[in-house]
Amino acid sequence: MHPLESVPNFSEGRDRATVALIGEELARFAKLLDVHSDADHNRSVYTFVGNEEQIVDALLAGIAAAVERIDLRAHEGVHPRIGVADVVPVVAVRRDDAELARETARIAARRIGDELGLPVFLYGEIGDGRGPAFFRQGGPEELQRRIDAGELAPDFGPAKLRPSAGGVIVGARRPLIAFNVNLAHADLDAAKEIARVVRERDGGFPGVRALGLELPRAGHAQISMNVEDWEASALHDIVAAIEREAEARGVEIAGSELVGLMPAGAAIAAAGALLRISSFDASHVLELRLLE
Amino acid sequence: MHPLESVPNFSEGRDRATVALIGEELARFAKLLDVHSDADHNRSVYTFVGNEEQIVDALLAGIAAAVERIDLRAHEGVHPRIGVADVVPVVAVRRDDAELARETARIAARRIGDELGLPVFLYGEIGDGRGPAFFRQGGPEELQRRIDAGELAPDFGPAKLRPSAGGVIVGARRPLIAFNVNLAHADLDAAKEIARVVRERDGGFPGVRALGLELPRAGHAQISMNVEDWEASALHDIVAAIEREAEARGVEIAGSELVGLMPAGAAIAAAGALLRISSFDASHVLELRLLE
Repeated sequence: MHPLESVPNFSEGRDRATVALIGEELARFAKLLDVHSDADHNRSVYTFVGNEEQIVDALLAGIAAAVERIDLRAHEGVHPRIGVADVVPVVAVRRDDAELARETARIAARRIGDELGLPVFLYGEIGDGRGPAFFRQGGPEELQRRIDAGELAPDFGPAKLRPSAGGVIVGARRPLIAFNVNLAHADLDAAKEIARVVRERDGGFPGVRALGLELPRAGHAQISMNVEDWEASALHDIVAAIEREAEARGVEIAGSELVGLMPAGAAIAAAGALLRISSFDASHVLELRLLE
Repeated sequence: MHPLESVPNFSEGRDRATVALIGEELARFAKLLDVHSDADHNRSVYTFVGNEEQIVDALLAGIAAAVERIDLRAHEGVHPRIGVADVVPVVAVRRDDAELARETARIAARRIGDELGLPVFLYGEIGDGRGPAFFRQGGPEELQRRIDAGELAPDFGPAKLRPSAGGVIVGARRPLIAFNVNLAHADLDAAKEIARVVRERDGGFPGVRALGLELPRAGHAQISMNVEDWEASALHDIVAAIEREAEARGVEIAGSELVGLMPAGAAIAAAGALLRISSFDASHVLELRLLE
């Protein structure tokens, strides 16, 4: 059993050779489970598992490849970012391994700064609770300005961003679900309004971060979400709320999209709701019982 | 990893001491995962896993306890049955182990006949395709009459049923889902009509067997189902059909009930439908990927 998972987001979702190369580098050291690329976001999310050492070695190799292949100055995409390896979370598969995840994230962060020469910013539990958005606001130029003004400083690596590579945000977190709902048309206003209704910041679901985005290549608008606590905010309740909001605006939903993998519990909760089985949980699923 | 599962149904769902004792006997040899007792059915369904030898030893011990503790002559319940250990399926957890499951069922059947002195009837894949219902029609008295008339014969054990213990139906099968939908009121006619709409025999869903039952103790009627091929007939489609049929009759649904455990794939399919994720399957669920 692999105790740790990492889900780095790299700023390339169009060039297949680069996406494949980063995956190969990660897979040299850890078990790569999923790659999700999006051309509009121009971003790829890799999911892999391993032990402490495998996770760190894979991240170093993958980020080195990204620095080599991606030029942030030529990058454009609808998702905010500050680096070619934009955000690098380390996740404990089991809650008991949370400290191992934090320790592994710190080791990876230090080595990314020292060995790859990139400015590294700690976020979340190991970074004073600040989220990735804190570092991304205004993009890499604004980040450099804030560093120069003394408003913030990298935790590892140089204080000067390399313009081609940018900075890296590293943290440890609980499993989250990256989940997008696509509207059938390119109605950016509706997507932004619905994102505001569901996200915690504006009084929506606890632990939900959401952005309304327009995806010109796919030809639709999207509510792009991170569901950080799927026990507090059930995925199926969020989807139901989005369906209601869309219907109220006369907007159709094209479908949903999972980025990476979903923790079993969130899928089980949705199944129990649709099948109307009260108190349905992972203990009622054969394969999950065999993991015990 | 345990290669085999067994899901024996015993004819006792009211006396807690007997239900517990049978569970203890099963757990002496195999890993007991679930016990589902129903007072109206007056029946308990045990789910346990193990290897070939553990499964056989557990079944012998559990059935011996049932013979000792349960008197079929005093048994009444809404579910048809012909013995204290009524039906004994052995299930391969992975499809590759189907032959092991059949072989284990045959070994268990022979030993139940030889060592416990009960008439044993093979069903399903190892019994000319005949299902449990073939043996149950008319109850134990009718079964004895058919044996005496030469219409059928036990595969193992004596040709004479012990009135207190009855006969045992043993088979190997693919995983199935035992799943009940409860109506809010004791409307037996509606339950029977809806059961007819959904079951394969009357033109409903492939691989679905269904009975309409009245549960006087619980105070409602029930559509009691076995879903034998949840890939062909998705559980959430069956529930949706029952909801439509109930609504058309002005009948409310109280909720659903799972008997035993659900294969992960069926829950994942329901989750994908509710969350509107196309092509969502077990490969997108973290814990299930870690089983690889």
